[in-house]
Amino acid sequence: MSLAQSVLAGESLGLARLLTQVENDSPEGRLALNELFPHTGKAHLIGVTGAPGTGKSSLVNRIALQFRKPPMGNPRRVAVLAVDPSSPFTGGAVLGDRVRMRDLSGDPGVFIRSMATRGSLGGLAQATAAMAQVFDAAGFDVILIETVGAGQGEVDIARLAHTTLVVEAPGLGDEIQAIKAGILEIADILVVNKADLPGVERTEGALKNMLNLPHPVERIFLHHGQAMTAPAAGGEAASLWVPPIQRTVATSGTGVAELVEAIDRHAQYLRQSGDWGRRERARLEVELETLVRQTLVKRFRSNIPDTRYDEMVERLVRRELSPWEAAEALLG
Amino acid sequence: MSLAQSVLAGESLGLARLLTQVENDSPEGRLALNELFPHTGKAHLIGVTGAPGTGKSSLVNRIALQFRKPPMGNPRRVAVLAVDPSSPFTGGAVLGDRVRMRDLSGDPGVFIRSMATRGSLGGLAQATAAMAQVFDAAGFDVILIETVGAGQGEVDIARLAHTTLVVEAPGLGDEIQAIKAGILEIADILVVNKADLPGVERTEGALKNMLNLPHPVERIFLHHGQAMTAPAAGGEAASLWVPPIQRTVATSGTGVAELVEAIDRHAQYLRQSGDWGRRERARLEVELETLVRQTLVKRFRSNIPDTRYDEMVERLVRRELSPWEAAEALLG
Repeated sequence: MSLAQSVLAGESLGLARLLTQVENDSPEGRLALNELFPHTGKAHLIGVTGAPGTGKSSLVNRIALQFRKPPMGNPRRVAVLAVDPSSPFTGGAVLGDRVRMRDLSGDPGVFIRSMATRGSLGGLAQATAAMAQVFDAAGFDVILIETVGAGQGEVDIARLAHTTLVVEAPGLGDEIQAIKAGILEIADILVVNKADLPGVERTEGALKNMLNLPHPVERIFLHHGQAMTAPAAGGEAASLWVPPIQRTVATSGTGVAELVEAIDRHAQYLRQSGDWGRRERARLEVELETLVRQTLVKRFRSNIPDTRYDEMVERLVRRELSPWEAAEALLG
Repeated sequence: MSLAQSVLAGESLGLARLLTQVENDSPEGRLALNELFPHTGKAHLIGVTGAPGTGKSSLVNRIALQFRKPPMGNPRRVAVLAVDPSSPFTGGAVLGDRVRMRDLSGDPGVFIRSMATRGSLGGLAQATAAMAQVFDAAGFDVILIETVGAGQGEVDIARLAHTTLVVEAPGLGDEIQAIKAGILEIADILVVNKADLPGVERTEGALKNMLNLPHPVERIFLHHGQAMTAPAAGGEAASLWVPPIQRTVATSGTGVAELVEAIDRHAQYLRQSGDWGRRERARLEVELETLVRQTLVKRFRSNIPDTRYDEMVERLVRRELSPWEAAEALLG
């Protein structure tokens, strides 16, 4: 049985092994992805981002529990992919996998995986996309993609998701609030976690003010990235979703049921408006571009002898050529 | 007179205009960069990074003032390039240029420029490198490159610098400290700003513990990026620099003179050890790679009709091809 087949058969050992292959971008991993790809496209991808200190990890934990024990309907299978682009060298220590395990361990309907930065952010977004595909093909209904921080890397990763949660918390300081003006623009749902702390009204008020800032429609279309520069047919409907602000206390679970309801409402909205398909398309387009870029660079490097490359760097160091001139000389 | 010539002649209007061209990656900007490049390689590039709330901007302000009014020797010409990768859409608002201006305005020996994220992080690091070259050619002795945050983007930008300062502050919480374990590895000098606040000993203690963590030599070589996988001749000396921890209070200026002395000691160390040249080389190599990659992608895109691209995306959406298969089909 191939690795892909064992994933389709629901074997968690095969799943773990394939995720490692995919994270390492191995040839076996790529072959398995080709085999699995026709089985993807069903899962709800949910991005969760926000600054350190907002309690994202605990919240993701609670959301997963809520999907497992819904008040109505069947429990859904949940995968958690915790991505840490903040720690390029020693990454991984931040993600409290052990803490999560206390509540979720032993439940075969939950699979948790953390990934630290390897190489460039482009590579990280690519690996995240590929790992989400594996979970999707393996039949997980919900894939929670958690990222630490609020930079460009998180935005790239959030672009993968159907629904993006931006998590805030009271009392993180004004400067932090200001910085998030950018990340707010990718939010489908705003969460004020630690809502039992003083200052929750102030934080919520600041968020409301930011939501009332200019360009609601532009905001929506930016979410789709470069792939969506003009409104598609039915694009008008996209401006109808106003990101709700949900208060939660992850430590006690308060507000998490309502948050999951909001997530489900957003999924419903996406499907009804046609946005689900548009986001899917934009995501696949970005992924294709990334793969094309990577392959182009690899082919180029294998065609240029190292000595030729070193010679150009030498001439740069001596200021005989500018970087632009050297690039043109190498590309011929 | 060309834009490049007016920059070499020290005209600040020409400088401002060229910086805009370079930031926008215009053809005129590229031509001017080619013309200016032989005049670069003299400035001391200093990266300043750290989490929001550490008071980086005020500190950069103070460092600039100190270079302008040294206790001994001549004042140095200072350029400040404030880069904000945290705010991909509304970027720029965070950078308190107006605050800086109070102390530094009217001094022709200081030039301050802020830049918000445009497009990808790769593009941002590239634009930062190019703008630093413009300042270098324009005769600025010191170029302070300030970045907000502590993610991969900041690391990419820090790689441009000869000397990297990582700024901390007491009381930012344990989670934030942990995240910085990664960014610490690129630090040449550690700064505990806001050193008049309670908890300064604890922050300094945490930093000392982190510095005593494994692999001091590996740390140094990682700093050089992929370009330096093996120690070069004289590479042994590289492990002799132990990042000092400097306490400052940017609001009052306390400790800033000592910090600038440490910066100068680091520059001296880099020159004596040969590391200055090695960092320069690694930096130019990274820049060349980025330009080659960008050009490859541009050429590819102009050779493939949009209809062919759209057709591939369509087949992806229908799950007829996997992303890898589509990329291979496009690349032929």
